Amino acid sequence: MLSRVARSAQRTPIRRQLVGARQFSSLDLIPNEPSRPSVKTEKVPGPKGIAASHEIGTFQDPRTHVIVPNYEESHGNYLVDADGNVLLDVFAQISSIALGYNVPALLELAKTDEFAKAAMNRPALGSFPPVQWTEWIKTGLLTVQPKGLDQLITTLCGSSANETAFKCSFMAYRQRERGGPDVPFTKEEMDSCMLNHTPGAPQLSVLSFKSGFHGRLFGSLSATRSKAIHKVDIPAFDWPAAPFPELKYPLNEHVKENEAEEKRCLEEYEKILIESKSTRPVAAVIIEPILSEGGDKHASNNYFRQLRLIAKKHGAFFIVDEVQTGVGATGTFWAHEKWGLQQGEEPDFVTFSKKMQAAGVFHKKETRPNAPYRNYNTWMGDPIRALQAREMIKIINQNNLVSHTARTGLNLSKSFKSLFETSNAKGKIMNFRGEGDGTYLAFDLTSPQLRDSFVGKMRNNGIQIGGCGEQTVRLRPMLTFGEKHSEILVSTIEKVLKELQDV
Amino acid sequence: MLSRVARSAQRTPIRRQLVGARQFSSLDLIPNEPSRPSVKTEKVPGPKGIAASHEIGTFQDPRTHVIVPNYEESHGNYLVDADGNVLLDVFAQISSIALGYNVPALLELAKTDEFAKAAMNRPALGSFPPVQWTEWIKTGLLTVQPKGLDQLITTLCGSSANETAFKCSFMAYRQRERGGPDVPFTKEEMDSCMLNHTPGAPQLSVLSFKSGFHGRLFGSLSATRSKAIHKVDIPAFDWPAAPFPELKYPLNEHVKENEAEEKRCLEEYEKILIESKSTRPVAAVIIEPILSEGGDKHASNNYFRQLRLIAKKHGAFFIVDEVQTGVGATGTFWAHEKWGLQQGEEPDFVTFSKKMQAAGVFHKKETRPNAPYRNYNTWMGDPIRALQAREMIKIINQNNLVSHTARTGLNLSKSFKSLFETSNAKGKIMNFRGEGDGTYLAFDLTSPQLRDSFVGKMRNNGIQIGGCGEQTVRLRPMLTFGEKHSEILVSTIEKVLKELQDV
Repeated sequence: MLSRVARSAQRTPIRRQLVGARQFSSLDLIPNEPSRPSVKTEKVPGPKGIAASHEIGTFQDPRTHVIVPNYEESHGNYLVDADGNVLLDVFAQISSIALGYNVPALLELAKTDEFAKAAMNRPALGSFPPVQWTEWIKTGLLTVQPKGLDQLITTLCGSSANETAFKCSFMAYRQRERGGPDVPFTKEEMDSCMLNHTPGAPQLSVLSFKSGFHGRLFGSLSATRSKAIHKVDIPAFDWPAAPFPELKYPLNEHVKENEAEEKRCLEEYEKILIESKSTRPVAAVIIEPILSEGGDKHASNNYFRQLRLIAKKHGAFFIVDEVQTGVGATGTFWAHEKWGLQQGEEPDFVTFSKKMQAAGVFHKKETRPNAPYRNYNTWMGDPIRALQAREMIKIINQNNLVSHTARTGLNLSKSFKSLFETSNAKGKIMNFRGEGDGTYLAFDLTSPQLRDSFVGKMRNNGIQIGGCGEQTVRLRPMLTFGEKHSEILVSTIEKVLKELQDV
Repeated sequence: MLSRVARSAQRTPIRRQLVGARQFSSLDLIPNEPSRPSVKTEKVPGPKGIAASHEIGTFQDPRTHVIVPNYEESHGNYLVDADGNVLLDVFAQISSIALGYNVPALLELAKTDEFAKAAMNRPALGSFPPVQWTEWIKTGLLTVQPKGLDQLITTLCGSSANETAFKCSFMAYRQRERGGPDVPFTKEEMDSCMLNHTPGAPQLSVLSFKSGFHGRLFGSLSATRSKAIHKVDIPAFDWPAAPFPELKYPLNEHVKENEAEEKRCLEEYEKILIESKSTRPVAAVIIEPILSEGGDKHASNNYFRQLRLIAKKHGAFFIVDEVQTGVGATGTFWAHEKWGLQQGEEPDFVTFSKKMQAAGVFHKKETRPNAPYRNYNTWMGDPIRALQAREMIKIINQNNLVSHTARTGLNLSKSFKSLFETSNAKGKIMNFRGEGDGTYLAFDLTSPQLRDSFVGKMRNNGIQIGGCGEQTVRLRPMLTFGEKHSEILVSTIEKVLKELQDV
């Protein structure tokens, strides 16, 4: 049953630096995982799924439903839907499942007294943190703190993590302008902020990048530049957007053009930082290591390092949004680890959510607000998600799942490259990208319609895969995705490309 | 041990309409509750609590900590802290615990397979809702839908619930201006919104009220007008704030003045709605039924009804923020039920969070966005909080906890009024308010310093009580708070007032 391409990938040697990492065996971690997809209905979703979606439609918008899963029956990388179809899930709830469905070790955690009591006694963490809080955080989330960032604000989701980083940036920026943490606010600032007017509500901005996505609350949406349908009709702050490089693929065939494109974008970026100073100074720059919702756009490590250095040069705080890229999928725990930032060049803030299940902001003590209650809300995170993150981090480490994912991604990249050179793929697939970024792989179809058709046929063939940008397919599997799943994925893509040809 | 005032309250007959409601017995629901507070350390927090807070301070801001609780040892209305002090908790995690700590029925829920699997398989609800979603919502949250609002968007917190209502209002407002749901966006709108410019990012506003609190993300913070320290240094939308009536207490001694004050505020409100039309039209008005964080400010039912009608007259959507007032504490499930709105006058949106544990927006189908993905994010709520809400709603109904709370609050109001007339209270306590609003009671101390001193001494005497506004003490107990807790509360206040006198 192995396709030619998948067989070839199996023989590929793994990258040298990964040799020696313990091989992860999915049998221990997700013992009940099906061996392959199984589609029972003519199309997915089938009649039961459609009926379930229709029922939800009586009280909630059902138009964005893809399938209605039966989570209780799902295992590991496989999602079961209302009709009993078994799908290999390489989208993972929009990149939000780290290990798999119904992982026994996590279900065990959920059944502990500790977890049950934490779930049913949700505290106002900012004022009444539980006695175990230090232990939960120090043995959990803090063990994966990005280099140089030893402070942690927990939140409930990625959007609020980014907005928290914005708020801390604005406060720290104004504090610097004011002359330090001990300089008091003026009466004019205190009075005018209550009217949403300057100087108390300052004319400062967050610079983001075209195609960037940072959430959909009012501050984060002002920084989001993915799609018009996300933004139209919603008031927004007059904040600037810099161009993000449009690299050409394959990279090794377009070295000079891509260098020039990155240089052009860096110059434009610096120009905006300078010009904004006289109108609406940039207090913070926010960037994803891979622009994900916007279409899996990559740039070189050097480009990102320059972004960081130029932000520093112009006094803007630097926020790395790792909400989607974080937690191992790119083959390093944090995607920005690859940039090679030196000591003193670290980001000011790194935000996370999704696969971590817990959400929040890592930062430095110098951006802790100068007075209490400046960053505060009722829940300030959720202890059960911190407990879940702790357990997942432990499992990731014990099973070397980050290096496993780096290795899996390299092999899969080779298979994709072989496949995408076949006549089946020609004229349909282009811009394969992400090699070296674990399983964080993507490619474009030649039109949005073809992309949608591809995704639909993949589902009908037993694979839940997701799109992003205008005509991109993005791979966002779990960290337990391995060679056997890769084989099924590659052979199914091969099949679907033939089907598309037959149309 | 009963104080004179508490004894007198016990003899008070309950309000006629509540006679016949089954008496709630806390013994069934929270069997392990202590019978009274017990303070072991000289002050609260004691040395262990202070040390625990200091430890958290190495990675998180500890300056807002009040105590560090041991939730595993806490039961019902009683919170145990790191030092083993047992406090009667009438603040309930900033009004976010509906029934009590470690309620056995809720811990049982947490240990079910259904809950554990829902916790560990968190879905992207907008695209992959679980097969049980309709059942969970129809037998849970939808059973408490405010009259006329049969649509539900779930979110993760109160701030994002309010911002979701804002976004739906803006979209519906522009849709009406555009001429209906089928009129397409113009190219100019689609292009300009990506730059955060008009017309795509429209110059529309949300009108809120001075002293109102609606959250601390960028949109909700723009509508929040509680305290400058919440807002200073954070960019804000240029949205208007209307005055909220400053009523004088006791109400029956200031009938005419209060009527005039409400009239003045309504006129000013309508003036803003009219004047905004030429600059930044008001797409939505947001109001809390009792302005809680801002100092427990009340107004008459007629005032609120007029607010709603005037909003309608000027084409603004009307959002009732029940994040703090909702779920029974005011003696009705929703506080706005008391306003007497007629059919067709219902709010357009009612938001909730806190005691519901689940968060979201009830609304009407006409404000469902006209296209998919206009209101969308990764999680769109959390199924386990919907499950928890369903169980809590069942318990609230089975034990008649809303009418229990109405009754408890009436009796407690009588005790307070007696107590606050004693010589102990004179010159220290004023503006007692909330009678008829369940246990949602408040009073002012004569200065912010005295309020803080009062709250601290209450804690040292075994009661965790909270402040709000500048010099207000607010009562926010759970729905299982009853006569025996009232007695302890009243006698402790009596004692602390004496202590304040002795200073």
